[in-house]
Amino acid sequence: MAERRSQIVLGIDPDPMRLWPRALAMVQARGTVAERAGRAVSAHCRLLLEAAGSECVAVKPQVACFEQLGAPGWSALAEVVADAARRGLVVIADAKRGDIDISAAAYARAFLRGTPTPFGDVEGLGADALTVNPLLGRDSLAPFVEAARATGAGLFVLTRTSNPGAADLQDRELADGESVSDAVARIVAELGRPAIGARGLADVGAVVGATAAGHLARLRAAMPAAVMLLPGIGAQGASGEGLEAAFAPGPAGGLVSASRTIADAHERDGGDPARSAAASARRLRELVWERYA
Amino acid sequence: MAERRSQIVLGIDPDPMRLWPRALAMVQARGTVAERAGRAVSAHCRLLLEAAGSECVAVKPQVACFEQLGAPGWSALAEVVADAARRGLVVIADAKRGDIDISAAAYARAFLRGTPTPFGDVEGLGADALTVNPLLGRDSLAPFVEAARATGAGLFVLTRTSNPGAADLQDRELADGESVSDAVARIVAELGRPAIGARGLADVGAVVGATAAGHLARLRAAMPAAVMLLPGIGAQGASGEGLEAAFAPGPAGGLVSASRTIADAHERDGGDPARSAAASARRLRELVWERYA
Repeated sequence: MAERRSQIVLGIDPDPMRLWPRALAMVQARGTVAERAGRAVSAHCRLLLEAAGSECVAVKPQVACFEQLGAPGWSALAEVVADAARRGLVVIADAKRGDIDISAAAYARAFLRGTPTPFGDVEGLGADALTVNPLLGRDSLAPFVEAARATGAGLFVLTRTSNPGAADLQDRELADGESVSDAVARIVAELGRPAIGARGLADVGAVVGATAAGHLARLRAAMPAAVMLLPGIGAQGASGEGLEAAFAPGPAGGLVSASRTIADAHERDGGDPARSAAASARRLRELVWERYA
Repeated sequence: MAERRSQIVLGIDPDPMRLWPRALAMVQARGTVAERAGRAVSAHCRLLLEAAGSECVAVKPQVACFEQLGAPGWSALAEVVADAARRGLVVIADAKRGDIDISAAAYARAFLRGTPTPFGDVEGLGADALTVNPLLGRDSLAPFVEAARATGAGLFVLTRTSNPGAADLQDRELADGESVSDAVARIVAELGRPAIGARGLADVGAVVGATAAGHLARLRAAMPAAVMLLPGIGAQGASGEGLEAAFAPGPAGGLVSASRTIADAHERDGGDPARSAAASARRLRELVWERYA
């Protein structure tokens, strides 16, 4: 972060119907529809990384956008992860997975680790971090923590998401006065406690919507060592103000994630997609760095 | 169900290191490690379906087990879905997905629908139903409901899962006296209400662990039209008793899911994997049918 003067995460949410024209022009007319779409998505993401990657410290590919293309989508995701890693970017796979015992372990292998088979080991995606859903409780998170700790990776647990529907369950008050999100925050703190580094930050972080600034101070108090991944800037309406509590442990306490704000900047300003994306990412980087570093 | 006299869902959770020997013998020595593992998993699932499919009404592939093999795993999953559909089995993709707006819509396209691209439509997986995680609230479920309703598919919302960790959040009591699971059950009922069929069952169902029999009556009261998908029999310790409330709307009110109990039956009885799986599925089918049909 210090080197790049950036706390920005480049969200990568490619919509096959809104790819940059240059990416479409790069795709050769061979293979199945899904294979061509996968190559186009991969090319789009490469151009986006090339344009805006240097303004960011991390990327956050939205796995759903790749999964909708089936096997070729997974291949495209693997290419994007490898390309981002080559550019020195931390890769946060936004998969929001959550399942029990052996299934959670299988997801952890898919994204963080690798899978033993009778034919040899199948490489995992090699992400540096993964978003996970805590609804199934501590034992469902344990295999993710184990895999992350074994590979030097991290987790971001959905704690208070950026959407209006977060009020339906996450904001509900429990009988003892805390909210469901508060209960999640305490689990996040507990899971991360054995692995707090020299800077006071743990390997288990939290997703907290930048739209939920009113919840930030309380959640930060419950999980003082968690890195907060803060989506919701721009397209979802958050301005980037009021996030001080996220950065209380220091400039690396928060990661501000933006997707459409950067990739679709040309749709607002009418410029070249790559140039608009770069300018948009730079503006956001400077704004956040000035305010919270 | 009436035709097959079965309320059994065949859970398909292939572990590459525990595939049936006959499946391994079928795999040709070409391609990458992941491709060979994917073909082995696909062969294993085909043999399992051949052996035990006719005792069941549905299959429930655990997506994590396929995803851990990357793109070849997704190809194997697509083959298993197609094979199960050919055998007249309802396919419930156990993906436990949950995300906001455009990402939820992308997952719904991946599993239920299909994705428009500039090169034509990419087919979705073609599942008949999908398990989804409700933590992000109503607006995160809406794209799944829309896609399911458009394609005649169904959803199973995680309501009270079968693992001990379900107590951490799902069983917590809210300030108004209901539990988090109760709140989910009310959302399930609400989402399904516009699409209750002639038999009194909705297209939005619920995952309720068979290990959580003590919660069943209360949850059934909150969502009288929901089909309950009941995992946890066998390997996870549930006996199959005490599930009457699930079947209150009729024999199709509940679906009893079993995975390792069937696929790994030979490890307990020492017989041929296919014969042991068939016998185990038949016993379970008869036991459940006798008790709840």
